Amino acid sequence: MKTQQFVVIGLGRFGSSLALELIDLGYEVLGIDKNEEVVSNMSEYLTHAVVADATDEEVLKSLGIRNFDCGIVAIGDDIQMSILAAILLKDLGVRTVVAKAISILHGRALGKLGVDRVIFPERDMGIRVAHQLVTPNLLDYIELSKEYSIVEMTVPESLNGKTLSEVNTRAKFGCSIVALHREGKIIVAPTAMDQLHSGDIMVIIGSNANIDQFESEAVNVSKSGK
Amino acid sequence: MKTQQFVVIGLGRFGSSLALELIDLGYEVLGIDKNEEVVSNMSEYLTHAVVADATDEEVLKSLGIRNFDCGIVAIGDDIQMSILAAILLKDLGVRTVVAKAISILHGRALGKLGVDRVIFPERDMGIRVAHQLVTPNLLDYIELSKEYSIVEMTVPESLNGKTLSEVNTRAKFGCSIVALHREGKIIVAPTAMDQLHSGDIMVIIGSNANIDQFESEAVNVSKSGK
Amino acid sequence: MKTQQFVVIGLGRFGSSLALELIDLGYEVLGIDKNEEVVSNMSEYLTHAVVADATDEEVLKSLGIRNFDCGIVAIGDDIQMSILAAILLKDLGVRTVVAKAISILHGRALGKLGVDRVIFPERDMGIRVAHQLVTPNLLDYIELSKEYSIVEMTVPESLNGKTLSEVNTRAKFGCSIVALHREGKIIVAPTAMDQLHSGDIMVIIGSNANIDQFESEAVNVSKSGK
Amino acid sequence: MKTQQFVVIGLGRFGSSLALELIDLGYEVLGIDKNEEVVSNMSEYLTHAVVADATDEEVLKSLGIRNFDCGIVAIGDDIQMSILAAILLKDLGVRTVVAKAISILHGRALGKLGVDRVIFPERDMGIRVAHQLVTPNLLDYIELSKEYSIVEMTVPESLNGKTLSEVNTRAKFGCSIVALHREGKIIVAPTAMDQLHSGDIMVIIGSNANIDQFESEAVNVSKSGK
Amino acid sequence: MKTQQFVVIGLGRFGSSLALELIDLGYEVLGIDKNEEVVSNMSEYLTHAVVADATDEEVLKSLGIRNFDCGIVAIGDDIQMSILAAILLKDLGVRTVVAKAISILHGRALGKLGVDRVIFPERDMGIRVAHQLVTPNLLDYIELSKEYSIVEMTVPESLNGKTLSEVNTRAKFGCSIVALHREGKIIVAPTAMDQLHSGDIMVIIGSNANIDQFESEAVNVSKSGK
Amino acid sequence: MKTQQFVVIGLGRFGSSLALELIDLGYEVLGIDKNEEVVSNMSEYLTHAVVADATDEEVLKSLGIRNFDCGIVAIGDDIQMSILAAILLKDLGVRTVVAKAISILHGRALGKLGVDRVIFPERDMGIRVAHQLVTPNLLDYIELSKEYSIVEMTVPESLNGKTLSEVNTRAKFGCSIVALHREGKIIVAPTAMDQLHSGDIMVIIGSNANIDQFESEAVNVSKSGK
Amino acid sequence: MKTQQFVVIGLGRFGSSLALELIDLGYEVLGIDKNEEVVSNMSEYLTHAVVADATDEEVLKSLGIRNFDCGIVAIGDDIQMSILAAILLKDLGVRTVVAKAISILHGRALGKLGVDRVIFPERDMGIRVAHQLVTPNLLDYIELSKEYSIVEMTVPESLNGKTLSEVNTRAKFGCSIVALHREGKIIVAPTAMDQLHSGDIMVIIGSNANIDQFESEAVNVSKSGK
Amino acid sequence: MKTQQFVVIGLGRFGSSLALELIDLGYEVLGIDKNEEVVSNMSEYLTHAVVADATDEEVLKSLGIRNFDCGIVAIGDDIQMSILAAILLKDLGVRTVVAKAISILHGRALGKLGVDRVIFPERDMGIRVAHQLVTPNLLDYIELSKEYSIVEMTVPESLNGKTLSEVNTRAKFGCSIVALHREGKIIVAPTAMDQLHSGDIMVIIGSNANIDQFESEAVNVSKSGK
Repeated sequence: MKTQQFVVIGLGRFGSSLALELIDLGYEVLGIDKNEEVVSNMSEYLTHAVVADATDEEVLKSLGIRNFDCGIVAIGDDIQMSILAAILLKDLGVRTVVAKAISILHGRALGKLGVDRVIFPERDMGIRVAHQLVTPNLLDYIELSKEYSIVEMTVPESLNGKTLSEVNTRAKFGCSIVALHREGKIIVAPTAMDQLHSGDIMVIIGSNANIDQFESEAVNVSKSGK
Repeated sequence: MKTQQFVVIGLGRFGSSLALELIDLGYEVLGIDKNEEVVSNMSEYLTHAVVADATDEEVLKSLGIRNFDCGIVAIGDDIQMSILAAILLKDLGVRTVVAKAISILHGRALGKLGVDRVIFPERDMGIRVAHQLVTPNLLDYIELSKEYSIVEMTVPESLNGKTLSEVNTRAKFGCSIVALHREGKIIVAPTAMDQLHSGDIMVIIGSNANIDQFESEAVNVSKSGK
Repeated sequence: MKTQQFVVIGLGRFGSSLALELIDLGYEVLGIDKNEEVVSNMSEYLTHAVVADATDEEVLKSLGIRNFDCGIVAIGDDIQMSILAAILLKDLGVRTVVAKAISILHGRALGKLGVDRVIFPERDMGIRVAHQLVTPNLLDYIELSKEYSIVEMTVPESLNGKTLSEVNTRAKFGCSIVALHREGKIIVAPTAMDQLHSGDIMVIIGSNANIDQFESEAVNVSKSGK
Repeated sequence: MKTQQFVVIGLGRFGSSLALELIDLGYEVLGIDKNEEVVSNMSEYLTHAVVADATDEEVLKSLGIRNFDCGIVAIGDDIQMSILAAILLKDLGVRTVVAKAISILHGRALGKLGVDRVIFPERDMGIRVAHQLVTPNLLDYIELSKEYSIVEMTVPESLNGKTLSEVNTRAKFGCSIVALHREGKIIVAPTAMDQLHSGDIMVIIGSNANIDQFESEAVNVSKSGK
Repeated sequence: MKTQQFVVIGLGRFGSSLALELIDLGYEVLGIDKNEEVVSNMSEYLTHAVVADATDEEVLKSLGIRNFDCGIVAIGDDIQMSILAAILLKDLGVRTVVAKAISILHGRALGKLGVDRVIFPERDMGIRVAHQLVTPNLLDYIELSKEYSIVEMTVPESLNGKTLSEVNTRAKFGCSIVALHREGKIIVAPTAMDQLHSGDIMVIIGSNANIDQFESEAVNVSKSGK
Repeated sequence: MKTQQFVVIGLGRFGSSLALELIDLGYEVLGIDKNEEVVSNMSEYLTHAVVADATDEEVLKSLGIRNFDCGIVAIGDDIQMSILAAILLKDLGVRTVVAKAISILHGRALGKLGVDRVIFPERDMGIRVAHQLVTPNLLDYIELSKEYSIVEMTVPESLNGKTLSEVNTRAKFGCSIVALHREGKIIVAPTAMDQLHSGDIMVIIGSNANIDQFESEAVNVSKSGK
Repeated sequence: MKTQQFVVIGLGRFGSSLALELIDLGYEVLGIDKNEEVVSNMSEYLTHAVVADATDEEVLKSLGIRNFDCGIVAIGDDIQMSILAAILLKDLGVRTVVAKAISILHGRALGKLGVDRVIFPERDMGIRVAHQLVTPNLLDYIELSKEYSIVEMTVPESLNGKTLSEVNTRAKFGCSIVALHREGKIIVAPTAMDQLHSGDIMVIIGSNANIDQFESEAVNVSKSGK
Repeated sequence: MKTQQFVVIGLGRFGSSLALELIDLGYEVLGIDKNEEVVSNMSEYLTHAVVADATDEEVLKSLGIRNFDCGIVAIGDDIQMSILAAILLKDLGVRTVVAKAISILHGRALGKLGVDRVIFPERDMGIRVAHQLVTPNLLDYIELSKEYSIVEMTVPESLNGKTLSEVNTRAKFGCSIVALHREGKIIVAPTAMDQLHSGDIMVIIGSNANIDQFESEAVNVSKSGK
């Protein structure tokens, strides 16, 4: 039973994407922006969307902000508004306040004001894209620790038709293939006899160094083989 | 042997983060921005950083752009500059051109012009954060398909001390715990006898619905137990 | 039976002149501009004229743009709008898309996006006027190839009363007078006995060098004779 | 012997194109603009290029403007500057002054001030492009009078292989083919036995109505024949 | 019978003062300005006052401008508007067109366009005030020629009680007192026996040099006598 | 012996005209303006010209303003600067301070602050031009009182060849011709036998009503006689 | 019986605070500002609040400003408006006019124009805060003369429990404790037997030097005793 | 021994006044502003004055901010800069941080961030001036509590020559005269025999209501007696 209610302040690219995804996930979302056109564009998708100044306490009160479970301050580039809106959300009693920061110092200010979670979307996305650029087969990844990751990777041409036992990533590279994704089907914990097909997606867990080595050798073989 | 060379055009929050991560990963990066202050701030971190108009073909030629393996057009809000820079990179023979888009139509234009990969950082980050907000224990996730995901999740209080066989996610919830992360150590493919400790991080693979069910039941138990 | 329908986006000096000429030629024209005053001024002359943002796909769809035979993107100085509008016209299925470019790079972008014809009005007009300035008797011309032209030229004083056989342009200068225009009457393929009157207009075909020579000698004679 | 000297005031798209073409035609051109970057870009192509305020009489004098044969006021959108510069050129004794106008009223003012020729580049180009759009085979044309034109037109598929006597434009349509242009060769006054090949360029003289009729019938045949 | 009708274009400080004085003198005045507030402030004083763009021919026609005897273009600082409005007034057939100029070149343009009288209010007033500053007793003056003036001057203390024959300006200084103004009464052609009282106003005619000499000697005596 | 020294603050159209006239009259003038270009243009004509902020007391002191006999605040449209500069001139001990006002309220403020004379150039010039417009023969005039004036007027055609006794302005119109100006010669107190020639300039003194009557009758005769 | 009426022109931070305090003190206040939002925010607190231009005499008259006892010109940063509004208030007959100045010269202008009291809020507050910063126990003070002050000071720990006779400020430091403020009760002219408690507030009168000495010794003892 | 060091960030009217007063009181002050002119003007008065961005941590470190005892954030209207500078001062270890706030919400943010003291100069000065306006004899006052004050007041005409026992403020009005200030001399704890002279300054302590009553009765007597 989903009952959590979200208020998203600032419906720019980040805020609107977040709000729409929350709606897709089945939650109620109130969107607030001071730009009338922006609100008008979003109003058909969100539970509610209002044009309002999120630094005006009376306005927030009249919108019943205190009853929301989670408030996201997704204000674009205006640090002042971001800070003042975050204070008001906290003071009005919103349980969880998340805010987007655009600089380290901005993030520090938000943290000191009691914001529960500070997000740096552009910075984080920059990091994520960098990883994908240097590993062309890399589709996505989770950084488990500074040293360990799970990575989602396309099976290169060079491994086509090989069984997991032939590839033997654990022995040769110290990392494990924990899942395969082929034609919409997920094979969890594939067996040594499962065959890789180029174009399949494999999920690998291991240290970054080991995964890197596996990836570059596999890719190199693949490329030099062309 | 890392020899790939990157040129990043536009050193705003996304571009600079991406450039710095590439440097951290051991690659050479040329950063270009038309703002002198921005370039000056980045110049000590990047291989090279220059103040230049990335829509001036002569300038790009004189910088030897044709020799770069990958160009990233990370220009903030100026669609015109983004498009013109992307054309030049392609025409100058940069093998892979990646560009950030700020709207669907912008992305479509980039695609038609032959850009190899179009990125929507704020939109993607909005989606990612939405998922984390609705699943408080969720740390990160990979969307394997529309239906399947791998998620990284904190072990809730309610599961503390239980063995994997007791939890028995596969039987009860249809999803598998493929790794555990405890005190810096990664346990790949944990056995049924491995115990969960609250605060550990578990990596689960399964359908979204199944993972959701597992998460909400585990959390509910945890919370109602408090 | 004229049934072609045109949509002209951008009703500045170039766009409005083009639209009005199309109307004069008997075609239906829809004019679009984001400036209300501009649209209001043109609305009495065009079939339809609307204030609209030509980069908003929904707006273009609602105007039934897909049914137009030819779309002209005559947007003044905004490269971004020009590019996005051109993409939309192509994607909506307008058969022929013509667009005005204000720089080489802009023109290149339009070409890559599939625009059927790219026009540089100011550049072309500059070239045309340059030719007229250096040949004062020159009224208009068609460049048949890099080397050959047809030119429309006033008959200078020095040739007054001479017959074509006396002038004998073909033998002396290697170019031919293919038509004469006197007092509103056109004489096509004039005979050797036709007389030139100063102030008549003669149409000459030949290589640029030959026409130049003829023109400068005739003019020189005319001037030195004064 | 080319000795005419030109001064072009305003080096925007129209002015610079005109200036460059004059240079190409072998004349000396002094370019003046108040924008330093513009002048710097043009200085390598023009005889001279200077940054100056063309409404400052002393400046124009010191540049020796009085010795120029022809001055072109190609100032973009600033009617005031255009008018004041035109007055100064006339008063300083430049023999021929040509000026670009951006509105009827602007053109009228220039005329009253004694400007020898007023040009409306965007308007004229709009008209020219309109004609080409409605006659897809039309390449270029000269308007001899309100009723008569010479047009340069691609030979359509439907006329491929026909001799001029078969086509018999004079008898059937009242217009004459005065030249053919095939593979870089110009055939002036082609004979009745000359054959048309699709893709050739033919030069036709006649009344607009007659040419239109010929064109649409030929094109119709061509299209319906597909 | 006063029937002259005036139209004043531009109701700034100069234009409004001129318009109001014409009204005071009993004439009909139509005031035109593009600023709504300005027009609203003047509308209660003028015969008519309208908000209009004086460079729009249709607008001027619809106001019946052709029927006005005299048009004054009193536009503040916008040379372009001033020139275009002046052309329209002339072309519409206003008999007399007077225009304010703000620079020599502007004045020259107006003259060439057929404006009947060009006024430089600030320049003329600067000259007038300069004269008054250097001759403290000078109240007003008319410059009859480069050398002769009529001046209106306060009688200094030093001349108090003296008769005109004692002062004898004609013999001593070569200038004549042609009128006296005392307590609201004007004495035209005063006799030799008329006495001067300090504070009276005397009207003197003569060469500038003579008047200067008279003034400075009288003033000096007056001052040194203090 | 001319020793008066003037400082003119603000070298716009009014200020520069005033300053130049003072120079022409043989006085020393220091010109001050905050615009560098303006000062540079004037510096070759004035005794001194400096770029300075006239509301900075230290600056004015360092320029030795206290030693000037007369200060003119001719600042264009900035009431604040005008008021503050006027205060400083008075406080620094400039004997006479004259200031230009742009509104009644501005003038009132200057008066209260002790400014010796407040000038409204545009307003005064508007009044003066109005008088000249309604009396085409009027060249200039001095308003002696609300009712009496001296006017300088061209002799109309209708009075050509008449003697003063024939015209008999005193008896017929109650006003007197006190001077005649013919071909550069001034006739003071002309006799009854002096003849008027059309084109001469006559100086008339009388009540406004009488002069008006004389002027309109003379002009009417003149015009109806044509 | 409170009947004084105040008009406050300019409802910025200073003006609105002043106006609200006057309301709290029981007086009638008319607030004037040209900013609609500002007036709307204040209108529920003030007797009247209107949007008006305070430099428009007619507007002020229509508001009946002449009947107000005191006018406060609290205009923020616009010296011109401040001066013109102050003149109008004086001229309309407001008995007492108080105005805020933002610079010495502005203050001087206001004084010359007859403003009864000129206030420099930021300057005065800066001075006041400086004193409090250097004397941490200082709560507030009145500067009786350049040398003497009354200060309100917290009793430091070091004096806790001491009687006034023990402290003996008059003999030891030359200053007197004229009142004590303990738990909401004021003891005027405390006796020698009254005891000080740390945290009490004491009011001391004396020369600045003596108070300083007392304060620093008491504080020093207090601190060194920790 | 004064050794406290202050850094004042923002040298506007409030900041500069505060900084100068600290200098006058004998302390060392470093002034920081991002406006070069402001810093240049202050640099001769302060110990040090630098142009710097106070939100740049590196800059503040290089200025040795950590060694200052007290930092005052006196930034004018930029809430963002004010907040970020305050955070940095706190984080760098400045013991006491004082900041000016321009709104309640701004003040709240500063408080949450750990600022030791938040000042509202304009608001406080507005309150202070309001009190002085309603009590014309009031020179200054200290608010001891909501109900009690010490006020400094001019002795009105009506009390001239009376002894304190005659006035008997304690019995009649419940408030005490604790000091008299006459001709530069302070009489602390005046006796019943001390006489009041109009123009003396008396310091009164009591409840607001009692002081008000005393003041209005004394003033009333004084005024009605005139």
